[in-house]
Amino acid sequence: MIKVSVMYPNKEGARFDHAYYRDKHMPLVKEKMGEHCKFYTVDKGLAGGAPGAPPAYVGMCHIYADSVEAFQKGFGPHAKQIMGDIPNYTDIAPVMQISEVVVGP
Amino acid sequence: MIKVSVMYPNKEGARFDHAYYRDKHMPLVKEKMGEHCKFYTVDKGLAGGAPGAPPAYVGMCHIYADSVEAFQKGFGPHAKQIMGDIPNYTDIAPVMQISEVVVGP
Repeated sequence: MIKVSVMYPNKEGARFDHAYYRDKHMPLVKEKMGEHCKFYTVDKGLAGGAPGAPPAYVGMCHIYADSVEAFQKGFGPHAKQIMGDIPNYTDIAPVMQISEVVVGP
Repeated sequence: MIKVSVMYPNKEGARFDHAYYRDKHMPLVKEKMGEHCKFYTVDKGLAGGAPGAPPAYVGMCHIYADSVEAFQKGFGPHAKQIMGDIPNYTDIAPVMQISEVVVGP
């Protein structure tokens, strides 16, 4: 299993609508990807590692798929619509990463 | 529920022993934290978002706990031993983040 992590760096003054992300954007991703997205998780950054430090990322999602190919099959045809929804909740350019799930939830 | 993410930035020439991390270090964390760690996940970075780009993080773990207090109660007394094990698998200084689990696995 692989996961695609989309991580939004925490920047002072940047905009991130957590409610929209949780209630509109991520359900849209799942709806469009269908069974190619096995499940997804959403995080809201609270704090960094050092006392009083801000979180590195204000928000993150992790999309789980059977393989990179399965992810691309589900995401590719809807990439334009999904990416086009991003300005509705943030002005932050996300960092993306594909990982192998070594120990799953 | 909260999660504590420990993320190891991908650096050329850096050392990261994925087998040790999976088979020794993370089981040690769970053993020491006991029920204060509900469960954990482990990722191995495969690729970045752009075609051919390397992953931002070579490895990550995410430790799930009922609250920040529960995490600290489980981790604090064993922090020295757990942190002391890090040089056994890597020379990378990790980025840590505490997040609220908005949508869980």
